[in-house]
Amino acid sequence: MQIAHGNLLTGLPPDSSAEVFELLHQHGGLKIERVVSSGQASPPGFWYDSQQEEWVLLLSGSAGLTLEGGAAEHVMRPGAWLHIPAHCRHRIEWTDAAQPTIWLAIHHDVPGAP
Amino acid sequence: MQIAHGNLLTGLPPDSSAEVFELLHQHGGLKIERVVSSGQASPPGFWYDSQQEEWVLLLSGSAGLTLEGGAAEHVMRPGAWLHIPAHCRHRIEWTDAAQPTIWLAIHHDVPGAP
Repeated sequence: MQIAHGNLLTGLPPDSSAEVFELLHQHGGLKIERVVSSGQASPPGFWYDSQQEEWVLLLSGSAGLTLEGGAAEHVMRPGAWLHIPAHCRHRIEWTDAAQPTIWLAIHHDVPGAP
Repeated sequence: MQIAHGNLLTGLPPDSSAEVFELLHQHGGLKIERVVSSGQASPPGFWYDSQQEEWVLLLSGSAGLTLEGGAAEHVMRPGAWLHIPAHCRHRIEWTDAAQPTIWLAIHHDVPGAP
């Protein structure tokens, strides 16, 4: 049986001028992707607002993430994970300028939501 | 808003006599867990056979995994991921004896399956 496999820490995109998203697995309302950031941050005043749940893991590099109404910035280092409920507005304040920041992001539908 | 967060590489279980499973997130038919192995392997002749899909990532340590009918053992190092379809029988041949092997395992239902 042929199965999909890979390594999140290798095969990094050569172009670091933008964040790079790579779909690893998708099934029904579930999506697993790798994101590689190279110093990017959310634009000033911009907040992500997703109708899907998100579970995110940082594997390499570092980042600062703010949740709207949250007390403080979440500083994420390798191994750090965070669950972001649907419609929990959030933004990426910064990502590591010195090395790639590698994320695993899991998005899934909220059962019963439109 | 209180959100769930943690770090997969810290807070390792003190007892390494068995594999330790820790549920990180569950929603509908989706389950995300951390597994810490300390040299454990599947018993001889034992094959996992799950009715759920599994997507697994190795973060630390190393392991050898065999898929039934597969050509060769998959040797997994940090960053390695593998998609295991439902009912794809597989077994863990070995995990690192010298250090903890830390896994992220994502299990999800197959839409339409009973």
